[in-house]
Amino acid sequence: MNQKMHAFPDLTFRLPEWVASVMPLADHVFRDDEEKMRLAVMLAKENVRHDTGGPFGAAIFDRDTGRLIAPGVNIVVPAHWSGGHAEMVALALAQQNLKTHDLGGDGMPFCELFTSVEPCAMCLGAVPWSGVRRLVCGARDEDARKVGFDEGPKPDNWIDEMEQRDISVTRNVLREEAAGVLREYAEGGKPIYNARQRRSESN
Amino acid sequence: MNQKMHAFPDLTFRLPEWVASVMPLADHVFRDDEEKMRLAVMLAKENVRHDTGGPFGAAIFDRDTGRLIAPGVNIVVPAHWSGGHAEMVALALAQQNLKTHDLGGDGMPFCELFTSVEPCAMCLGAVPWSGVRRLVCGARDEDARKVGFDEGPKPDNWIDEMEQRDISVTRNVLREEAAGVLREYAEGGKPIYNARQRRSESN
Repeated sequence: MNQKMHAFPDLTFRLPEWVASVMPLADHVFRDDEEKMRLAVMLAKENVRHDTGGPFGAAIFDRDTGRLIAPGVNIVVPAHWSGGHAEMVALALAQQNLKTHDLGGDGMPFCELFTSVEPCAMCLGAVPWSGVRRLVCGARDEDARKVGFDEGPKPDNWIDEMEQRDISVTRNVLREEAAGVLREYAEGGKPIYNARQRRSESN
Repeated sequence: MNQKMHAFPDLTFRLPEWVASVMPLADHVFRDDEEKMRLAVMLAKENVRHDTGGPFGAAIFDRDTGRLIAPGVNIVVPAHWSGGHAEMVALALAQQNLKTHDLGGDGMPFCELFTSVEPCAMCLGAVPWSGVRRLVCGARDEDARKVGFDEGPKPDNWIDEMEQRDISVTRNVLREEAAGVLREYAEGGKPIYNARQRRSESN
């Protein structure tokens, strides 16, 4: 026993099985921001209904073809991965699909990240590293905070910070529908699982 | 072809093979902050030497036993994963090992995250969700920026934001050694791979 070596497992994460079954065909062309956001919001809703994670969905599209590159849902609790937010999952899947860490690199399509709720501090920090060039959000930060989710320490000027990095930001696309998924989740008594709640909020 | 369905791969990430070979035995007791940070800095250095990623290392320890829970190195480029920063890898591995998304949950050890460089915006956002209760940093944000790494949009009061969430922050442990790894990396002409550089820095 004294000679026991450390061994570290692979990290393997996957989308819930139901996701593939609710996707459109691979050649489906998404026409506009609303149709793209509708997919992200549907993913959030179905994730709650299947009890496979938190009320958050995301998807990455090729702006020029209108095709889906990768979906994402929150898999934090079932995957044992606090980094498993919908945006992080969608970004990682898109990067695996396109075999690059930089979706904005040479030869890559113009990638747009749609998310059913404005990104938390972690996901916001992840966006510039990912190479996506456009971020489109449904529900607002305050909609998430209203039902008890801590969005984390974000700089006040985050939109400007994105635009400084040539990432455009569009907000409030299907905000009501996306916020509705958050409300239903909270009203259903499902866990609001922030690990380290701010003292000022938890007291 | 018109009926082609979307299929999404598993996400599988792993530490470079050399990591296990440089780890101490599983029952090794780390005595103090410097010894713990020395492991994180060694991981950063070896990661550069083996050409398996960027000059960043991290490790998670059980404060009460002094044992290593999980190491991490930056695997961004080889793994095709912009989220593959050392801290994110170490956190995800610790959570897999302990089978929980919340390292601060009931029955968990008191987890400390050591990182060879102050976390970027993404990793900083990830810390509160992970459940670690202490963050210990080597090189400073400005040491990383000095060699060209964009640390992303972090709130100015990030230390206070951590402490508000009962996460204590210690900085400047082996700062010089950790900053030295960054300098060697940059002087070696290795890629500084920020996907979306701030215009004000890249112009």
